[in-house]
Amino acid sequence: MPSFHPPVRTLMGPGPSDVSPRVLEALSRPTIGHLDPAFVAMMDEMKGMLRTAFCTENELTMPVSAPGSAGMETCFANLVEPGDKVIVCQNGVFGGRMKENVERCGGVAVMVQDTWGTAVDPAKLEASLKENTDAKIVAFVHAETSTGALSDAKTLCEIAHAHDCLAIVDAVTSLGGVPLLVDEWNIDAIYSGTQKCLSCTPGLSPVSFNDRAVEKIKNRKTPVQSWFLDLNLVMAYWGDGGGGARSYHHTAPINALYGLHESLVILEEEGLEAAWQRHAYHHQALRAGIEAMGLSFIVPEGDRLPQLNAVTIPDGVADADVRKQLLADYNLEIGAGLGDLAGKVWRIGLMGFACNKTNVLFCLGALDAVLSGMTDNINKGVAVAAAMAFYQQ
Amino acid sequence: MPSFHPPVRTLMGPGPSDVSPRVLEALSRPTIGHLDPAFVAMMDEMKGMLRTAFCTENELTMPVSAPGSAGMETCFANLVEPGDKVIVCQNGVFGGRMKENVERCGGVAVMVQDTWGTAVDPAKLEASLKENTDAKIVAFVHAETSTGALSDAKTLCEIAHAHDCLAIVDAVTSLGGVPLLVDEWNIDAIYSGTQKCLSCTPGLSPVSFNDRAVEKIKNRKTPVQSWFLDLNLVMAYWGDGGGGARSYHHTAPINALYGLHESLVILEEEGLEAAWQRHAYHHQALRAGIEAMGLSFIVPEGDRLPQLNAVTIPDGVADADVRKQLLADYNLEIGAGLGDLAGKVWRIGLMGFACNKTNVLFCLGALDAVLSGMTDNINKGVAVAAAMAFYQQ
Repeated sequence: MPSFHPPVRTLMGPGPSDVSPRVLEALSRPTIGHLDPAFVAMMDEMKGMLRTAFCTENELTMPVSAPGSAGMETCFANLVEPGDKVIVCQNGVFGGRMKENVERCGGVAVMVQDTWGTAVDPAKLEASLKENTDAKIVAFVHAETSTGALSDAKTLCEIAHAHDCLAIVDAVTSLGGVPLLVDEWNIDAIYSGTQKCLSCTPGLSPVSFNDRAVEKIKNRKTPVQSWFLDLNLVMAYWGDGGGGARSYHHTAPINALYGLHESLVILEEEGLEAAWQRHAYHHQALRAGIEAMGLSFIVPEGDRLPQLNAVTIPDGVADADVRKQLLADYNLEIGAGLGDLAGKVWRIGLMGFACNKTNVLFCLGALDAVLSGMTDNINKGVAVAAAMAFYQQ
Repeated sequence: MPSFHPPVRTLMGPGPSDVSPRVLEALSRPTIGHLDPAFVAMMDEMKGMLRTAFCTENELTMPVSAPGSAGMETCFANLVEPGDKVIVCQNGVFGGRMKENVERCGGVAVMVQDTWGTAVDPAKLEASLKENTDAKIVAFVHAETSTGALSDAKTLCEIAHAHDCLAIVDAVTSLGGVPLLVDEWNIDAIYSGTQKCLSCTPGLSPVSFNDRAVEKIKNRKTPVQSWFLDLNLVMAYWGDGGGGARSYHHTAPINALYGLHESLVILEEEGLEAAWQRHAYHHQALRAGIEAMGLSFIVPEGDRLPQLNAVTIPDGVADADVRKQLLADYNLEIGAGLGDLAGKVWRIGLMGFACNKTNVLFCLGALDAVLSGMTDNINKGVAVAAAMAFYQQ
């Protein structure tokens, strides 16, 4: 069996996004032990940088040793006890996954549905909480990766708290891409992923819990059903900062953590606000090109994520054919629609390292070329110029 | 915040073990999408190579996207239903972790205890099964990483099956280091880790399930309590081989999987039996040196793992001082004792890439030098020569 040498792609789907060469190099640094003093010092640095990225001072801030789905499960498995009622606001695929998590923890999920492609409606959450006065937790997705809709996390958390609920927030796609202020918005528990706007490889899930959430975890009547994700145990390893002794829980994914550390160093060098602005800026250029072609966004302008652009597929064009040709002829990956939106939209990611002028112009050029060969239902040959005009303003 | 540049260590503890430079390089290859056809082809290759390493033809053979502890949880969460009685044979730390897993799945754990440092006693398992005629599952650790004891997996599985139980086997430290014949021994469910004898970085857990186990999972009365680890869902992504379509479950840890692929290519190049023989061979050299110093192994000779050597700490020597000095002066990591054996033994790993003549001689030389400065309770200056004499036979 020969070694595997992947093709070199440009990743502009819903994630993984293009990874910085610095992060790839960091992954290949020599492995050391998970209790090595040098590693423990790196863990402390990482916790500090994650706090900066989340805009929080939460002590319990660290990466879960598994992908974002496991970060989601960490939040639900630790905070939901059997019988707990959880209001889940769903406006895309990931709200549905939250429901699964609630039910598998023995909780009762009450679903508040919004149209896919729109933000979560705070009024509907308010109404549901008035009906369900015994609810303990509210859960919603800040940035829906399946639709590109951004919800108002601050307002949703205020409503949750006004009804004595904790708020669990999915920030897989928002962290590092749009403003996310964990402390200012009073988010109680949050999880994210590394393979979106942090431009790291997939496989880790940064999480953060405030004191209210930690209190609830410490005072559970039943044990957390997952040994691997039980924060009471995990914290003995990730410790309380300050370089103190750590005890073994599971073997940490050492080299993956080197990569995350490097991606957080890069984010710190750029500055968090600068990163948010960069995402907003290049989104506007992409938008100029997309709209010039005559395509449209499914998310209303005010609720649109800059880093995840769900674009309608023109009539008479076969979704998969376009994506296949982009991959084959341009080594360019864009995303398919998920769930209800399968076959109806493409998802174009502008995440982290992938969010730059080169990628915007390349993607528009490739999409224009491929679509021009397949349909007359677009304005041909104008997309790149429209984006260039934006950049030259 | 500067980038993190780890010191270059020699890893001869209980894992992570030294990682091949080829695996480190593989980690840094360009990230591609988790549904990219090139990635899907690599997944198929990996499943094939894992089958070879496990000596199985089990269709459901794949790496869980998280460390060995999550592999353990995958086995228990999928196979144990609330109320199921599970016989857990414990002869070290990891049997205790199995008990935690059983109970958190709502099962009833019946513990069969053996002295730490000995193999699991088949007669005790037999007796327990005669008492517990309603037991559904037997679980045991093939190679106890906390003690270095190897148990007779074939016999234990035979006893389990004679009493209509499925057998769950922990092979975290055995895979690639000692004979492990999943099909021939009729192991129903098995999990391992990547950071031991596979010489890959930590963070993934190869697992394999036979048809009997899959049948049980498909016919559960209750849903698997973990969404992330639910094999009914995970298999929609890891598929049935042959390059067919895959549907998204969670985002796979792409680059970590490149590393595992490379480590399996290396294992295939060497040959599985040759790898087993190499571990046995260098263990004998290490043993010659250790015994020449006057130190001893806690595990009786016939049950001793070549890849994990639990060696008694000489009287009057402070465990941690020795390990600290080895790390500081020699960049050499050996392991501390765990649980009941904390402070009583060191655990010297000879795993995968780390299992070679250079490491054996270096470790004996460093240990001799450090101990010689601290105690007169060893034979000084003879360890390296004893190992050399073995190699020159």
